[in-house]
Amino acid sequence: MSAPPDPQPLYLDHAATSPPRREVLEAVWPYLTRVTANPSSAHAAGREAREALEQAREVVAGVLGARPGEVVFTGGGTEADNLAVTGIARAAPRGRHVVVSAVEHPAVLETALALRAEGFRVDVVGVDGDGVLDLEALRRTVTGGTTLVSVMYANNEVGTVQPLAEVAEVCRDRGVPLHTDAVQAAGSLPLDVDALGVDALSASAHKFGGLRGAGFLHVRGALALEPVLHGGGQERGRRSGTVDVASAVGTAVALHLAEAAREEESRRLAGLRDRLVAGVLAAVPGARLTGHPVRRLPHHASFCFPGVGGETVLAELEALGVTCSSGSACAAGSEDASHVLLACGLDADTARTAVRLTLGRTTTEEDVERVVDLVPRAVGLARA
Amino acid sequence: MSAPPDPQPLYLDHAATSPPRREVLEAVWPYLTRVTANPSSAHAAGREAREALEQAREVVAGVLGARPGEVVFTGGGTEADNLAVTGIARAAPRGRHVVVSAVEHPAVLETALALRAEGFRVDVVGVDGDGVLDLEALRRTVTGGTTLVSVMYANNEVGTVQPLAEVAEVCRDRGVPLHTDAVQAAGSLPLDVDALGVDALSASAHKFGGLRGAGFLHVRGALALEPVLHGGGQERGRRSGTVDVASAVGTAVALHLAEAAREEESRRLAGLRDRLVAGVLAAVPGARLTGHPVRRLPHHASFCFPGVGGETVLAELEALGVTCSSGSACAAGSEDASHVLLACGLDADTARTAVRLTLGRTTTEEDVERVVDLVPRAVGLARA
Repeated sequence: MSAPPDPQPLYLDHAATSPPRREVLEAVWPYLTRVTANPSSAHAAGREAREALEQAREVVAGVLGARPGEVVFTGGGTEADNLAVTGIARAAPRGRHVVVSAVEHPAVLETALALRAEGFRVDVVGVDGDGVLDLEALRRTVTGGTTLVSVMYANNEVGTVQPLAEVAEVCRDRGVPLHTDAVQAAGSLPLDVDALGVDALSASAHKFGGLRGAGFLHVRGALALEPVLHGGGQERGRRSGTVDVASAVGTAVALHLAEAAREEESRRLAGLRDRLVAGVLAAVPGARLTGHPVRRLPHHASFCFPGVGGETVLAELEALGVTCSSGSACAAGSEDASHVLLACGLDADTARTAVRLTLGRTTTEEDVERVVDLVPRAVGLARA
Repeated sequence: MSAPPDPQPLYLDHAATSPPRREVLEAVWPYLTRVTANPSSAHAAGREAREALEQAREVVAGVLGARPGEVVFTGGGTEADNLAVTGIARAAPRGRHVVVSAVEHPAVLETALALRAEGFRVDVVGVDGDGVLDLEALRRTVTGGTTLVSVMYANNEVGTVQPLAEVAEVCRDRGVPLHTDAVQAAGSLPLDVDALGVDALSASAHKFGGLRGAGFLHVRGALALEPVLHGGGQERGRRSGTVDVASAVGTAVALHLAEAAREEESRRLAGLRDRLVAGVLAAVPGARLTGHPVRRLPHHASFCFPGVGGETVLAELEALGVTCSSGSACAAGSEDASHVLLACGLDADTARTAVRLTLGRTTTEEDVERVVDLVPRAVGLARA
């Protein structure tokens, strides 16, 4: 265990992961210590576990405005994305044509591309300089024979919120199911699946205060789904494996709390984010915001600092006590330029200067003022 | 939450799931509360999480006599089984021929059968009346062109330990990789992969005192593996998704503790099991043990009580304060006769009378005496 830098580091990497909420740990504890039977078991201990699981499912479904049976608990957001894309495509492969955006997380993008080996044509629709999906291109690409469209709700690297309503209209017109990767959006943006017009939605619990290794897929009852993981047939045959009741309970509590506080907290965070963005852009010559200036996640600020390597800025920020990242944690340390920033039209050199600061429940105004002060210093040190 | 039956129910369903060990919860706690960064992140907080993850991997590898890089953390045993069977078969599909035993858990059996859609031939090798693999049939079935053999270490429903050394010899002679589903064996039987002669081994943490939603796959470095879950490329590209550090730490602690106590505890449990088996067979007319009388899991006793429905006996036992099951928790409540018992040559009616009693760390001699007394009463009540 390395000693933490002094002063107490300021954690601004909530898009990578956010610590579990205290209320989640309290809610989970009885299911780690007392109610520990297998929820598939027929005996009373199993039934007690199963009741807790089904209550958790109802809570999650409530936030989504969905039916409990439409919620499949998974081992995380990546698994939920894989299940959505592969499961929907394989269940009704008519047309063998999948359409995704160019800025999808690899959990969707790589999963869609892997379907090529099964004879699917996969079209990747581009975005504009702000990371917003090219709706005209989408309209040209999606046909009545398209199997599935998957467009993320909000982007993890640049924070852009996609025009899902318009995407949903394109899909509805052509009778094509729409999946959205809501891993970054869940907890920050409304999740009512009817209002969004989506047929499937995936989320990851640790992005909104739940436990790691937990997530869920919502999929409309009318939509067929092939399982990705075969076995005991849990989750109505859609996801085999002993269900982790504790994680499901934690997911429900975290989602419920996030939803209850969402509007107020989103306003608060958006205010902090705007102050952060304005402060950094004003103080760092040449700095540019990546992603959409307005239609972005409330807790998400992302920049390029042309001419200075993002990793160097991150190292200086870390030495100054700020913990943040270049973009996706999955790609941390990679030499490759981000596929998201390239899709936004940045050249590879500029893309390699990316710095992402993502706020959370615990972030205060003072934190943001400190960062607004430290980012220009870090960039200056990195340039020196 | 339903009130527990009185007196305090005796939990004898450890093969379905065993409560997490107190030491596991203590070890996991810091990774739920303090060290909560994404282990893929490049910053100090991420590095601290990553160090804990890699230490956990070393502990698991140590118990297996393997290299840390050969251990892939997964979201459970089912996922590990799916990754092994699908991942090895797809990575080197030469011959397109997969061989499994007839008594595999559905996580292996269904996964293998699903490969038929990809052009694989899948052969299912039978077992004898004790559930022991027919080695002669295996020798006839496996050829130099076989892609993969998967034979479980020990069976979940009837407890039979397979002759893995002989299976490994067949595979080695023909140059075919061997996977074993060690979900039921892990914690009870030796796991040294060289001594076992296996190329891949999967396990589930909650069967040996770890957390639910956690497992691992060991796969030899020389063996290619296609991922089943696509995404951020974690676990060296073999299993995408943010790694759940807390669960991995818990898995390592549980496996280490189980291994340290294994020989002594296995002797103790085998003694209790033998007393239980002898007591039940002596007291219940017509009762028969399922699975092998000697080559069986030390904590595992399973019976058929011809002429009396297993579910009825379970209900009577539950009313008498004993929590156990008919066999696999996954299939609890199903009307179908167990594929394992049918493979052992039982007729469907007899197979539906199955009752499984599986002991654990907390089981005492007094518990076993109580059960030896209660099982005949439960069968008598069920027959009445």
